[in-house]
Amino acid sequence: MAEESPVPQAPPSPRSEQSPSVLRWSEPPEGPVVVLLDQRRLPEEEAELVCTDAPALVEAIRSLAVRGAPLLGIAGAYGVALAAARGFDVDEAADALASARPTAVNLARGARRAQRAFRAARAAGADRAAAAGATLAEARALHAEDAAASAAMAAHGAKLLDGLLPGGGHRLLTHCNTGALVSGGEGTAFAVALAAHRAGRLRRLWVDETRPLWQGARLTAWEAARRQMAYTLLADNAAGSLFAAGEVDAVLIGADRIAADGAVANKVGSYPLAVLAHHHRVPFVVVAPLSTVDLATENGAAIEVEQRAGHEVTEVRGRGGLAVPLAPLGTRAYNPAFDVTPPGLISAIVTEAGVVTPVTAEGLAALCASSRQATMS
Amino acid sequence: MAEESPVPQAPPSPRSEQSPSVLRWSEPPEGPVVVLLDQRRLPEEEAELVCTDAPALVEAIRSLAVRGAPLLGIAGAYGVALAAARGFDVDEAADALASARPTAVNLARGARRAQRAFRAARAAGADRAAAAGATLAEARALHAEDAAASAAMAAHGAKLLDGLLPGGGHRLLTHCNTGALVSGGEGTAFAVALAAHRAGRLRRLWVDETRPLWQGARLTAWEAARRQMAYTLLADNAAGSLFAAGEVDAVLIGADRIAADGAVANKVGSYPLAVLAHHHRVPFVVVAPLSTVDLATENGAAIEVEQRAGHEVTEVRGRGGLAVPLAPLGTRAYNPAFDVTPPGLISAIVTEAGVVTPVTAEGLAALCASSRQATMS
Repeated sequence: MAEESPVPQAPPSPRSEQSPSVLRWSEPPEGPVVVLLDQRRLPEEEAELVCTDAPALVEAIRSLAVRGAPLLGIAGAYGVALAAARGFDVDEAADALASARPTAVNLARGARRAQRAFRAARAAGADRAAAAGATLAEARALHAEDAAASAAMAAHGAKLLDGLLPGGGHRLLTHCNTGALVSGGEGTAFAVALAAHRAGRLRRLWVDETRPLWQGARLTAWEAARRQMAYTLLADNAAGSLFAAGEVDAVLIGADRIAADGAVANKVGSYPLAVLAHHHRVPFVVVAPLSTVDLATENGAAIEVEQRAGHEVTEVRGRGGLAVPLAPLGTRAYNPAFDVTPPGLISAIVTEAGVVTPVTAEGLAALCASSRQATMS
Repeated sequence: MAEESPVPQAPPSPRSEQSPSVLRWSEPPEGPVVVLLDQRRLPEEEAELVCTDAPALVEAIRSLAVRGAPLLGIAGAYGVALAAARGFDVDEAADALASARPTAVNLARGARRAQRAFRAARAAGADRAAAAGATLAEARALHAEDAAASAAMAAHGAKLLDGLLPGGGHRLLTHCNTGALVSGGEGTAFAVALAAHRAGRLRRLWVDETRPLWQGARLTAWEAARRQMAYTLLADNAAGSLFAAGEVDAVLIGADRIAADGAVANKVGSYPLAVLAHHHRVPFVVVAPLSTVDLATENGAAIEVEQRAGHEVTEVRGRGGLAVPLAPLGTRAYNPAFDVTPPGLISAIVTEAGVVTPVTAEGLAALCASSRQATMS
């Protein structure tokens, strides 16, 4: 079950660097809960959504109250820990969480990792409570690893940008939302732009509004304002004019799944940006943790792309869920949530373990192998 | 002054081919008026906007109650005729109308053409009433010419498509609105798709929603539904996925100005489609009357692109003008109304006088010259 509760702290201050917690585990007297910042209600309200069981978290994931590939992995792990702590069927919870959304590989990975921790503890003779403790510890480890990965990606990405754009004064274009709202840390692509901002090297962050669900307008603009970054919002359609005017030095996006050949599934609208960037010889950089790389998916064609309901396109939801119709009643809509960019259009993939450039299956496999080795050693 | 009046006819029927009049001259007892179908209120309401003087028409043009390059030309001419008939300063009205929006060349052309008719009549000794009559006759002639041009473009365009896509079953992608709502006839690009539909050769019309002002979702979907065409709406961002899936056989768009070199200014988002079409080797076809060609504008860089208010991007207006905010308060937006596609990305320009392909300055100049000769002979 999910309960909504307004955050009791100070009113939202868009100029504050202090963020509300995007996802946290809490232990009230009546048992543990996972508390989410309800991203559907941003930027107007900073409201928390309290999930007391895995089905509530599945619904929060499906309805995009919580979203973003790395954060979905963390949410999946905490969801399994919640089922374990509250005595629900852990395998059932892991299955439901792993399949709540199909494209981001991180979600299934986080859920399965926590599930494995639970099983391993039980197999080693732990009682149910101790196994639940081990599951929570695994979720917390994933959370901490993601925060560290975020910091490492920001550092690698900022260095890459300085090499690609030696003059500074970067004008970066980004799509969807890839900041603190998607991560245990400061995010993926957004974290790179933030690092450039902190180094005094960001001239302008161009923020694609990101139709149909406005993650750019609602979330990235909110994060950029809080960080006091110089940002400008645009209709996705206007990106072409910026490229044509020479106003974009690089594109930075995140990823929901990276196939073995380096093809990247990301928010719909990413592929057109990649084609534009290619046409204008502008670097197109993907920033994502290695948990997003799925070597079991051979190439982009093998990535399942989630198709979402047409009403996301045919109407806009305002405050209080009021639907503003945009199209005549009965209009059918084509609404893929993601698109796939082939590796040939990607200049570099930035991960916490380093940068793959040019983007090849070999380069990606080598980075994943070296990272596994480092983890194992 | 403008007055709003609901159309007293039958309630809107999206399945009816019968359209309300998009723009008409009317002679009520209290003096002539220009009556517009208020496009801001579609698709929910078919309401008329009654303009009793040129300033009201200028405001209707600026606020997009009336829009679309060819129709703006007609509106400009009737606006000057209105000033002439009501005894206002004709030159002042023509100046205000000609500069109400900067990008579509048709607007200034229509207004100036009516102004010239007024001046010529006065110079030839006509009294004020007779000169007003001559001005109105000129506006009506432009209106009729535009309807005829529309039919000729549809025929040329349908023939071009049949040559490019011999198998039939066309899947056409269009952007913005280019149908009966922009023209004295059935439109430009949309008229070509409609001709294909009538010939049983249209499999699917993909309708770009066309952010920020939703002309595709609101207007093209409305026109397609009325015509019983097989259409599907999409967020502009999803066009890339359609191209990648091989689901687009050709792109059809209109134009607001065509420079001497064949560069085309059209609704923002057209240029990214041109780049995508080029990348996927899909024909990119511009359909526009010769009145859109401006040989005095040397190339695309010389076309003035209208920059519109940021609130069009940062909020959505619902019924009754209610604003739904999309971005944090204080967010700046980049909001060009148009973009410019260079001739090298355009497969063909379809006009009422024939088709220019490949698109070159020479080809365009020759077509314009032959058309002028035909008009003069």
